[in-house]
Amino acid sequence: MKQPDSIVKLINKFSSLPGVGLKTAQRFAYSIIDMSEAEVSDFCDAMMSVKSNVHLCAECGNFTEKEVCDICLQRDKSVICVVAYPKDVLALDKSGTYRGVYHVLHGTLSPLDGRGPNELNIKSLLKRLDGVKEVIMATNPDVEGEATATYLARLIKPLGIKVTRLAQGISIGSDIEYADEVTLDRALDGRTEI
Amino acid sequence: MKQPDSIVKLINKFSSLPGVGLKTAQRFAYSIIDMSEAEVSDFCDAMMSVKSNVHLCAECGNFTEKEVCDICLQRDKSVICVVAYPKDVLALDKSGTYRGVYHVLHGTLSPLDGRGPNELNIKSLLKRLDGVKEVIMATNPDVEGEATATYLARLIKPLGIKVTRLAQGISIGSDIEYADEVTLDRALDGRTEI
Repeated sequence: MKQPDSIVKLINKFSSLPGVGLKTAQRFAYSIIDMSEAEVSDFCDAMMSVKSNVHLCAECGNFTEKEVCDICLQRDKSVICVVAYPKDVLALDKSGTYRGVYHVLHGTLSPLDGRGPNELNIKSLLKRLDGVKEVIMATNPDVEGEATATYLARLIKPLGIKVTRLAQGISIGSDIEYADEVTLDRALDGRTEI
Repeated sequence: MKQPDSIVKLINKFSSLPGVGLKTAQRFAYSIIDMSEAEVSDFCDAMMSVKSNVHLCAECGNFTEKEVCDICLQRDKSVICVVAYPKDVLALDKSGTYRGVYHVLHGTLSPLDGRGPNELNIKSLLKRLDGVKEVIMATNPDVEGEATATYLARLIKPLGIKVTRLAQGISIGSDIEYADEVTLDRALDGRTEI
């Protein structure tokens, strides 16, 4: 027996969220029906207000509600950590040890998908290199992430700025037994004296 | 570094969905930012329209957009399958073998949580028993589900109507080795000749 149209439509909307399959979307839709009208309207307001208030920081390209984000306003601008997406800023900043600023590329170089340097937030990175001592490449350790890091390093190094890459090796809490060969190779290459 | 207020608010809203933790909620919120304004507004419309269009079927208590749901309108009314929640109708009806109607209680008896018979959709069940040959109890096989089934059976059996319970036993595809004792007990009790 078919479900009511409006429920089917909402299930489809929820299915468009990352990692949400049909069954989870169904569960979400049913929980929306169980909410009060005020709660649902609040939920919608929150969604719409994110779309209208949040835009990209004029300096780093991260999400912010201001012209320039809090991190760019308050942190040490002599070190820039370059990431692919805003969610990576979130992950890196959680550790709390890094005191520099970020720069969000909004993607990685991918010739196959037609994403060249002009599609990424690279120009504004080159504009903010005055007085910068170090640029840390924190793109993912996959083909596209590595290519992007190498490309940027070639642009930035000639300006006399130190370019570094996040260390690659075994994750804390993981098992050497189950680590793949490339990870183990990198871990051996980057071994440090104790 | 704190995230923008509107993002934090949206993350909180997503966290209120069943089974969604902070990290998943964050992922959902960021994917909302990545959507176009039109997509987000569509999403909101779908949420609001579910709240305004979907209500409970006057006969069975399941979700519908009409006065009486399609199942109640089209199916054999001499068999009623009693479930706790609308999502259970969805699960049971997927198999496609059942041709009768449903009745949704919207909960189970739970004296500890203050849910007595008056809090459940029981009165309307008793009103639709004319001409009914069988009532199938399809509440969950837990304490509250069993108590609810037993309570309803005591009300309905004296009216000369057959009351049955979903078979309990080993799930298809599961391992006898890992089945718990109660399930195995029930499976033995309910064994059938081959």
